[in-house]
Amino acid sequence: MIKINENYLKLTSSYLFAEIARRVEAFRQQNPQKEIIRLGIGDVTKPLPRACVDAFRKGVDEMGEEGAFRGYGPEQGYGFLREQIARCDFQARKADISADEVFVSDGAKCDTGNIQELFAGDIVVAVPDPVYPVYVDTNVMAGRTEKSVDGRYGGLVYLEGTPANGFVPAPPNQRVDLIYLCYPNNPTGATATREQLKAWVDYARAEKALILFDAAYESFISDPSIPHSIYEIEGARDVAIEFRSFSKTAGFTGARCAFTVVPKSCVAYAGDGTAHAIHGLWNRRHTTKFNGVSYPVQRAAEAVYLGDGPSQVREIINCYMANAKLIKDKMSSLGYSCTGGVNAPYIWIECKSDSWKFFDMLLNDAGVVCTPGAGFGRCGEGFIRISAFNSRENVEKALSKIEEAVK
Amino acid sequence: MIKINENYLKLTSSYLFAEIARRVEAFRQQNPQKEIIRLGIGDVTKPLPRACVDAFRKGVDEMGEEGAFRGYGPEQGYGFLREQIARCDFQARKADISADEVFVSDGAKCDTGNIQELFAGDIVVAVPDPVYPVYVDTNVMAGRTEKSVDGRYGGLVYLEGTPANGFVPAPPNQRVDLIYLCYPNNPTGATATREQLKAWVDYARAEKALILFDAAYESFISDPSIPHSIYEIEGARDVAIEFRSFSKTAGFTGARCAFTVVPKSCVAYAGDGTAHAIHGLWNRRHTTKFNGVSYPVQRAAEAVYLGDGPSQVREIINCYMANAKLIKDKMSSLGYSCTGGVNAPYIWIECKSDSWKFFDMLLNDAGVVCTPGAGFGRCGEGFIRISAFNSRENVEKALSKIEEAVK
Repeated sequence: MIKINENYLKLTSSYLFAEIARRVEAFRQQNPQKEIIRLGIGDVTKPLPRACVDAFRKGVDEMGEEGAFRGYGPEQGYGFLREQIARCDFQARKADISADEVFVSDGAKCDTGNIQELFAGDIVVAVPDPVYPVYVDTNVMAGRTEKSVDGRYGGLVYLEGTPANGFVPAPPNQRVDLIYLCYPNNPTGATATREQLKAWVDYARAEKALILFDAAYESFISDPSIPHSIYEIEGARDVAIEFRSFSKTAGFTGARCAFTVVPKSCVAYAGDGTAHAIHGLWNRRHTTKFNGVSYPVQRAAEAVYLGDGPSQVREIINCYMANAKLIKDKMSSLGYSCTGGVNAPYIWIECKSDSWKFFDMLLNDAGVVCTPGAGFGRCGEGFIRISAFNSRENVEKALSKIEEAVK
Repeated sequence: MIKINENYLKLTSSYLFAEIARRVEAFRQQNPQKEIIRLGIGDVTKPLPRACVDAFRKGVDEMGEEGAFRGYGPEQGYGFLREQIARCDFQARKADISADEVFVSDGAKCDTGNIQELFAGDIVVAVPDPVYPVYVDTNVMAGRTEKSVDGRYGGLVYLEGTPANGFVPAPPNQRVDLIYLCYPNNPTGATATREQLKAWVDYARAEKALILFDAAYESFISDPSIPHSIYEIEGARDVAIEFRSFSKTAGFTGARCAFTVVPKSCVAYAGDGTAHAIHGLWNRRHTTKFNGVSYPVQRAAEAVYLGDGPSQVREIINCYMANAKLIKDKMSSLGYSCTGGVNAPYIWIECKSDSWKFFDMLLNDAGVVCTPGAGFGRCGEGFIRISAFNSRENVEKALSKIEEAVK
């Protein structure tokens, strides 16, 4: 008899964004004439930068030409892309990362979801709260948790992000083995200082723990004192894996390209205490369960680093960050306490009510879709996330509708 | 202390094609002047069909236009593609599959590797021998096997494909829960008749087992009596998942698009005997650990079904199959017993020697890269696989060099 992985039965509810989509669809069917402005899921809205489109097209053309056509590429990504990434995203910031430590993939969601496969079933996992649900759900599926009680899975250590700590939790007093960190943070928009990251690296080195550092939003950092990569912190190479994405940086949510950095010096241990390079384990997984990113997409991603690419990317980010400022200023002026929106495209807003209730109110009264904080964990209750990913016009319209709705 | 998944340490050797690449690279460095013809990995060589290139470009152009741009798509794939697949690949063959049972992905390797996550750790898994290594390695990683002894992992049931059964093993006399089948077969090129598949479906229904049917090569079937889909067999909807790919069909190995069919009536069981729809479990995995296929790639895949797409695809397949006939005829005339090559792009050749030795001989003496059968399992020892994926010119050249080398 074929038996299921019963850990799936522990998953408490449908994936957050699927639930939002369901409520929005129900509203749309009941109010077909009402305009809906989506500031929820964190999907970009602006077209790909021109440089990326041109490179993408050129890649497609090659796929149609005898001689230029490319079949299977290296599962880890083409050298042309890995080298740009290592040079521009890391070495240029004095982070010691080489091209063969970069694994190109089709998404940071996939990589942050798959990475836990490399580790034992009985490790202690620490996740932020509020949290990007993928970190939690993939560990539930893998059997590293007990059932959920009051919105928390037994066996996980929750690192609480609250107004008191500025949504940047410090290392815990207990032992944890695998630590998910995300800065600039999704959903709070908070960032970690060099000192705060150093405390985590020191903790991981002392405990032989591993940090999974999700830096998908690093390109939104405007404050020059804030690290973009965990590898800007000394000693991080031995205890941290970093996840990046072209999704938010360059509008690749629909094009699909991301990458994960696994330094060769980064190790994990067998039960007998022998150290094993995680690089080799991830390489084995990547070559066994993945077949590389579409070649034209990798050419489009390369264009982010070449010629006019960087300035076009910057221009798009600046537009979103101008939106973020508008949102933050307006919500603050309406009396809501806000985090994020300065070094991140998300504004985390204390909504002074149940967060799904506030979500429903914004949807019904303003036609605006946000993300209810409670969907990100217990510490998200009482908050909502508003995303800056939309047109200036829509953001302005949404803000005036929100103003009307909450007055 | 961060501990590794020690099941990875059971993996006996590097992934087959990585080992081949290593040997070829060593040969190339020692013989920089010698031409190498690759009939090994099974990668296509012809450009994408014109219809696919045009649709791909159009998709890219949309990604650069305000209003037409698409961000995150449905993780399961766009309706436009899922509907073509359901209609043309299944309903047209009287296989009762609907669009919402089709999950679009970036590769059949990924899907056949990931699917086992849905099932319990203590199920009995049956794999073919010779076997596509991904089926085995992903179950080793998941801890469903013991260590490997003499090339076989304890705990797996090996379904032996031999000349005696025409490389189509019958259901075993023992109970197994999860069964990997692949027809047309990789690596042997053998196909299963309707009666042979029916025996498997009957077995699965009787044992409450599940069949994972890899049909990545179905478009190479020329014999009208051979089923293209397991769903052409009555009752298969309840006990089988099918994997398909655009890789070999339409040259998408570098473009990346595939799909998996999970019928809604297909179930697996909890320990207490309650049935659970696998469709919901796979949907949960797909939405949690995957973010959909690149939009322009999905448009390119859609073109396989529209306008001139089907005839252009057919033309490419006919070229490869003409190569397959040349290979089969030549190797047969040289006294080698061959399987496949009629309804599959692979020719499985009894090489009358150790298969890695024959591989090295072909590489060194003929400059031809094949795939050693032993890399596919114990029953592959004494065989090699030659692939028809190359130009007519290269295949002819390779065959005359092989003729010289083996004479």
